[in-house]
Amino acid sequence: MRDNSTPLYQSLADELRAAMNDGRLPAGARLPSVRDAARARGLSINTVLAAYRQLEARGLVEARPQSGYFVRSRLPSPPAPRFGDGITRAQPAQPSVLDRIAVAVAAQTDPATIDLSLACPKGSDFYPGERLARLVAELARRQPELLSDYSLPPGPARLRREICRHALDLGVTLAPDDIIVTNGCMEALQLALRAVTRAGDTIAIESPTYFNLIPLAEQLGLKTIEVPTHPDTGMSLDALELLLSERRIQAVFTMPTVHNPLGTSMPVASKRRLAALANEYRVPVIEDALYAELQFATPLQPLVKAFDRDGWVIVCSSYTKSLAPGFRIGWMAPGRFHRQLASLKFCSSVAQPALLSEALGAFLESGGHAQHLRRLRRAYAGQIDRLRGIIDDAFPPGTRATEPSGGFLVWVEMPEGCDANQLFDAALARGISITPGNLYSPSGRYRRHIRLSGCYPYTDRHIHALHTLGNLAARQLGG
Amino acid sequence: MRDNSTPLYQSLADELRAAMNDGRLPAGARLPSVRDAARARGLSINTVLAAYRQLEARGLVEARPQSGYFVRSRLPSPPAPRFGDGITRAQPAQPSVLDRIAVAVAAQTDPATIDLSLACPKGSDFYPGERLARLVAELARRQPELLSDYSLPPGPARLRREICRHALDLGVTLAPDDIIVTNGCMEALQLALRAVTRAGDTIAIESPTYFNLIPLAEQLGLKTIEVPTHPDTGMSLDALELLLSERRIQAVFTMPTVHNPLGTSMPVASKRRLAALANEYRVPVIEDALYAELQFATPLQPLVKAFDRDGWVIVCSSYTKSLAPGFRIGWMAPGRFHRQLASLKFCSSVAQPALLSEALGAFLESGGHAQHLRRLRRAYAGQIDRLRGIIDDAFPPGTRATEPSGGFLVWVEMPEGCDANQLFDAALARGISITPGNLYSPSGRYRRHIRLSGCYPYTDRHIHALHTLGNLAARQLGG
Repeated sequence: MRDNSTPLYQSLADELRAAMNDGRLPAGARLPSVRDAARARGLSINTVLAAYRQLEARGLVEARPQSGYFVRSRLPSPPAPRFGDGITRAQPAQPSVLDRIAVAVAAQTDPATIDLSLACPKGSDFYPGERLARLVAELARRQPELLSDYSLPPGPARLRREICRHALDLGVTLAPDDIIVTNGCMEALQLALRAVTRAGDTIAIESPTYFNLIPLAEQLGLKTIEVPTHPDTGMSLDALELLLSERRIQAVFTMPTVHNPLGTSMPVASKRRLAALANEYRVPVIEDALYAELQFATPLQPLVKAFDRDGWVIVCSSYTKSLAPGFRIGWMAPGRFHRQLASLKFCSSVAQPALLSEALGAFLESGGHAQHLRRLRRAYAGQIDRLRGIIDDAFPPGTRATEPSGGFLVWVEMPEGCDANQLFDAALARGISITPGNLYSPSGRYRRHIRLSGCYPYTDRHIHALHTLGNLAARQLGG
Repeated sequence: MRDNSTPLYQSLADELRAAMNDGRLPAGARLPSVRDAARARGLSINTVLAAYRQLEARGLVEARPQSGYFVRSRLPSPPAPRFGDGITRAQPAQPSVLDRIAVAVAAQTDPATIDLSLACPKGSDFYPGERLARLVAELARRQPELLSDYSLPPGPARLRREICRHALDLGVTLAPDDIIVTNGCMEALQLALRAVTRAGDTIAIESPTYFNLIPLAEQLGLKTIEVPTHPDTGMSLDALELLLSERRIQAVFTMPTVHNPLGTSMPVASKRRLAALANEYRVPVIEDALYAELQFATPLQPLVKAFDRDGWVIVCSSYTKSLAPGFRIGWMAPGRFHRQLASLKFCSSVAQPALLSEALGAFLESGGHAQHLRRLRRAYAGQIDRLRGIIDDAFPPGTRATEPSGGFLVWVEMPEGCDANQLFDAALARGISITPGNLYSPSGRYRRHIRLSGCYPYTDRHIHALHTLGNLAARQLGG
């Protein structure tokens, strides 16, 4: 029933808000298109737009380019990780941390376990598996020698050309000869770290950081210094500059664009400053850009590499998260370290499979990638919203979660009194796998944090598992 | 015209010897089958056999199981590398060595260059490229998720099962859980070396050794000690035991079965002793078994790993040379170092492409591998004979070459006065690529040695290039 004293747009906004509150429009749901809503209700386009914009201004819905308005999760603002004790010298990774990574990975290969945390897309139709399969099959038929010929570096020219073309979208101008193709991003990071450090060196890393970096640094005999990293502003550049000015670090490892595990990005001005620091202090910055193509907002924000003057930034990435999880094809642009890296790659693993490198080059050249990325970004933006909505419903009050700028990872801070390691054990006993926060810190911080992943299409089983997890967390509070 | 005073078998033997001398039966040629020769000449089977056996006894032909008799090259006996100065402390690899490797590899990707040296099969019908291509295409069609799903360690169970089944032929009993799948053999070697050493350690290596090991060891901060390695007897175990007893080495790297670059194998009794030394001194032995399946004689001789009691031998291999050069799929069985290696593999490159690992598993399971290997061994035995024959014809007198027990590599020692580095430059100027001997020694030994490869099916262009090379070598002697 319409109240004539209320503006038309306000009635519509109120009605939609009520639907959100009682669950008819859950987090992640798409509002009707402006045109459809106007037609269905006999309203003008401008009236509907005014209603939607009010909801947007109040943080209840968000507009996504070319796809419409979506209901946002009502989860509270992202956490500010506490660094009361400032910069901390790292401890060696505890064996139990490696064990937890191993258990979490092993659990994912067991179909009986529900994985809620790993960043390993499986069984998803978000990726063009069938199209890639047709391409691979056709290439194998037309060029069977790709299977029986030896693969040699530096990898197919077409693939390297396409990598350069797509890097332009991230503000980076590269030539095919700047590119070294690798076995996924992990190999690129590993080679970069080996090339620019020696055992006994110290590197600055973000806190939290990508978990695999911790055993890798330890195995290479590197000391790590955790630099406080805020979801909104990224690695503290003041802290980093202090370390650089004291000559205490030989390299910097950073994931400034869609961070793992935070899911958020460093502002562009800070990226510019980070590149300037690398060049001024002549200290290599290893930039992990694995999720950069999965930024939700377009145009994409540029990488740190975009502001690199003298080649001190080594950028590493891959198509593992953005296009072809099964290919394991990554790349790096090592700047001034190109010669060392080309040699190191050759004596570390020689090359990649020719068939898959060529198929990837062909797919990228065909122009399908831009369209696929648009679809994938929308899908993951929806997944993230849905995940944040479920966290909001399922976890105890006081839980906070980051608001990712891309990708499919959310960093969750549970209230004081929760223990993520105990939660890991309790969840695993129920066939649910998560990664506890201390995996992401060499000194074992983040004991009430977990990373959750929205890379799996949600089934009832997943949603039920997330609720179970929330209940287990609530139980830790003695509720 | 038959001379009745000469036995029938002797007439036949003389006739064949004449044909070998005047080139009608060149090195590598197959004699008519015993049955065909008997039928064609109206002789008994026993008479033909007697003639063939005389030629065999005189070293002119050789019998190969299930394929017949082949004309042997008349090249002199293999060289005994000189180690007048005994064990030598290594020098860092000269940059020019790395440059030569890079030039040789780059040359191979240039279709205008004729490569005579690299171990990179290309454009060969020795490998079942079409059958693998059909398998890959079919698998991609039936299971497109292999391209869009994440690959996780430890790799497909079927592939690991098949690796174990085939390892039995090399005397090694393994379980699928013992296996870590890798990006080719090179990654396996690299991980093994990283797992068992720390910067500053010293490792014992063969001299000559696989060239890529030298920059790898240097990059890892490892010192190397070159242990004299004879084509007939392998690495000197007396020298090695001295080093072990003095606690001067933290690991041993060896390629005892079809060595690269020698092409020859260590006797089985020595392999047994090497395994015993590793277990007695508790020092890890990294055994590179890349060419072991390509041994010419069957049953295959066992690996060092076959005699490993307590898991001190880390065996590394791959299907790159034996089945699918384009797949880049290798494996390792790290024995007592399994846990470290599994962790190191995960934080170094995570996994391999699922589609290719599954396709390889399917091919191996189908039973096609044994038949393919039989064919490949025959092909390479023929190539090697032919190569040795051409070396004999084309190179200056006094040239010696190893007599490989498998694979497709021959190690050539040119006479005093030849210089392999100058030969490299002169050959490259004529569009021919070789690898000079000092690439195979960290201290720059083997300045008049080159490695030649028989992995390319011989064309007139190849044969002409080998003759050009021989002429260039002769010219160095001022002939």
